[in-house]
Amino acid sequence: MDILYEVADSLRLLREKRPLIHHITNYVTINDCANVTLGIGASPVMAEDVDEVEEMVSFASGLVLNMGMPNPRKLEAMIVAGKQAAHMGIPIVFDPVGVGATRLRIDAANRILDELQVSVIRGNLAEIKALTGLRGDIKGVDSMEQEEYSWDIVQRLSARVGCVVAVTGKTDVVASSSHVCSIHNGHAMLAGITGTGCMTTSLIACFCSVTKDSFVGTVAGIATMGIAGELAQRSLKDHEGLGTFRVRLFDAIATMNPETLIQMIRSDYLTIRS
Amino acid sequence: MDILYEVADSLRLLREKRPLIHHITNYVTINDCANVTLGIGASPVMAEDVDEVEEMVSFASGLVLNMGMPNPRKLEAMIVAGKQAAHMGIPIVFDPVGVGATRLRIDAANRILDELQVSVIRGNLAEIKALTGLRGDIKGVDSMEQEEYSWDIVQRLSARVGCVVAVTGKTDVVASSSHVCSIHNGHAMLAGITGTGCMTTSLIACFCSVTKDSFVGTVAGIATMGIAGELAQRSLKDHEGLGTFRVRLFDAIATMNPETLIQMIRSDYLTIRS
Amino acid sequence: MDILYEVADSLRLLREKRPLIHHITNYVTINDCANVTLGIGASPVMAEDVDEVEEMVSFASGLVLNMGMPNPRKLEAMIVAGKQAAHMGIPIVFDPVGVGATRLRIDAANRILDELQVSVIRGNLAEIKALTGLRGDIKGVDSMEQEEYSWDIVQRLSARVGCVVAVTGKTDVVASSSHVCSIHNGHAMLAGITGTGCMTTSLIACFCSVTKDSFVGTVAGIATMGIAGELAQRSLKDHEGLGTFRVRLFDAIATMNPETLIQMIRSDYLTIRS
Repeated sequence: MDILYEVADSLRLLREKRPLIHHITNYVTINDCANVTLGIGASPVMAEDVDEVEEMVSFASGLVLNMGMPNPRKLEAMIVAGKQAAHMGIPIVFDPVGVGATRLRIDAANRILDELQVSVIRGNLAEIKALTGLRGDIKGVDSMEQEEYSWDIVQRLSARVGCVVAVTGKTDVVASSSHVCSIHNGHAMLAGITGTGCMTTSLIACFCSVTKDSFVGTVAGIATMGIAGELAQRSLKDHEGLGTFRVRLFDAIATMNPETLIQMIRSDYLTIRS
Repeated sequence: MDILYEVADSLRLLREKRPLIHHITNYVTINDCANVTLGIGASPVMAEDVDEVEEMVSFASGLVLNMGMPNPRKLEAMIVAGKQAAHMGIPIVFDPVGVGATRLRIDAANRILDELQVSVIRGNLAEIKALTGLRGDIKGVDSMEQEEYSWDIVQRLSARVGCVVAVTGKTDVVASSSHVCSIHNGHAMLAGITGTGCMTTSLIACFCSVTKDSFVGTVAGIATMGIAGELAQRSLKDHEGLGTFRVRLFDAIATMNPETLIQMIRSDYLTIRS
Repeated sequence: MDILYEVADSLRLLREKRPLIHHITNYVTINDCANVTLGIGASPVMAEDVDEVEEMVSFASGLVLNMGMPNPRKLEAMIVAGKQAAHMGIPIVFDPVGVGATRLRIDAANRILDELQVSVIRGNLAEIKALTGLRGDIKGVDSMEQEEYSWDIVQRLSARVGCVVAVTGKTDVVASSSHVCSIHNGHAMLAGITGTGCMTTSLIACFCSVTKDSFVGTVAGIATMGIAGELAQRSLKDHEGLGTFRVRLFDAIATMNPETLIQMIRSDYLTIRS
């Protein structure tokens, strides 16, 4: 299957090129994002002062805008960084953490989507539903529930916002204007530690920075986290819990290889006629 | 013993209800606080911009105000968040990190205690002594030393500030207006890693969010950390040190159950006649 | 060899005195820096608001100024903290993270070096080269490459900036006005996790706070990290990767002892005639 080959190939490229991924992100999981970026084979840089982000982005091959713990200064830096990323033609991956919960986050997300051309949006179902509401009504989105997202609805969201949209949860769905894919990897323990969503966003940015196809990069990032979660869980002994799981997750990401990705990915894939 | 039953029951409730715990906290241990909150069965949210905390607290069942790495913007957010918490009737757990060391922290603690009705204060002996000094003289407090805190003095502190007060250290003492309890769990390695105090505060907030009795919630949070520390230490092999201990601590918190709490807690308990 | 004895002795002193090390540092690795400080036997405090750093430094025996994730407020606090450190005669260890990449970082580094008398600068080769460029031309510095730094050039840098300079990488070189030393410990996995540079800086500050000789303290800090990296790597089993390595690194630092330091350090050492 073509896409699986491309996913595997993007990991090879990533390890070869070691792209620099600029993050503007929250402080809860900033260390995890740096370590997952290093673990998969890229190089992280974190800078968020409005006076330096334009210059710093100019060295980068990808930009993560993670909206956790937002404030007005950081939002300003995101906009400046995002414009420089657009100018350079590098992918922007947007994680609308907690959008919908507060006016600050709603306004921030609206401003990011209005002023920047992001390549990928990744969120959980609640976040993606909230984001959709901000971008005009899409019929049926309110009825989407955890465990069953309609491919059709995610695909229409993607068309509406004009970029790849990924909804992650028990099943993950990724949609672009022309393709849609669901990924069935992962383990419930991933929801038991903080940062697995943020780390998935960072992984997506790593992969997107080396493949021109953001749909492929997004599938690769999500599959990597899901498969690493499965490997981490399998390695646990009886008395080991979430602490050890988290350590093994980093082990599994750092030792991930293209063959494991292809062998373990469980996905359904569809090309959309436009 | 009644209180042990209530402690165990609060863990059952916590796992069932998965309360959302809003944190305004320091960046040194913010990831640890999020992971311990998830580990014990609650759900963390971190937001600290004054423009969004009121809205975010409105979704929460408990509020942590941790004074580490303070600054004026964060203090302002703590006050706004705390007022919303009071309005909603959810517990506020205050950790006066480093109070006494600087004027900024003294003023911040005074303002928090003046303007908010906190449910629990948890600190080490130096912090609790400093805090007491700010709240008027209590005879004998200066002579309290690590290893032997007077129940009587902690209890009078509690009466003075009008909330549950917990002094943690080798022995932990928890006092309310009507009860006092000392807890003898824990291990010296807990002092060898950063964040065990902050994490204990987060655990207290988790438990207090599901029990109406803040005294019970505080005992439950402190006992959970102490017992988890003992379990983590016991699991270590010869060559393993603080790094592995920290991982096993998260394992032990995530696998804590009501039976273990009751079996392992070592506490003395007294009801005060008022 | 005299210096090895002094290195070992500084670890004994550190464990005995438990010095307080004030950090103003980046949020990516702040938790790691706190844990490594505790692990080696010192005590960390993090404070960065300009309104409290002067008071907080007054309790400390060493000051870390780590320039990662800079902003104008934090720079102001670094200057105030540094002046208090100078007033007290405690060592300042400066980590010019990413200097050269942006104007903000260049200006910050210039201001720190102009206004403060730092005791030690530790950076990677790119950072030290950039810093040198800011301090006037030193012939040959541009031709230094990873894997082979000229002792002579690092030594001239040290003389120029008037403090100990450490370049860390595959080989580490430490120079003062009168001595130069290269250290050959470490393992490639140290570059696979975030924060090993920042943690080395923290370790240097811990050691420098108990020895009057910043050259010795710097060698001790760097050797500790390198040797711990080797011990961590050796302990790994087949399926274990960067996640487990990171845990074992903390184990090895916390269990480091003077004998291991002396037995495992691989260094060359030269006294410079002035």
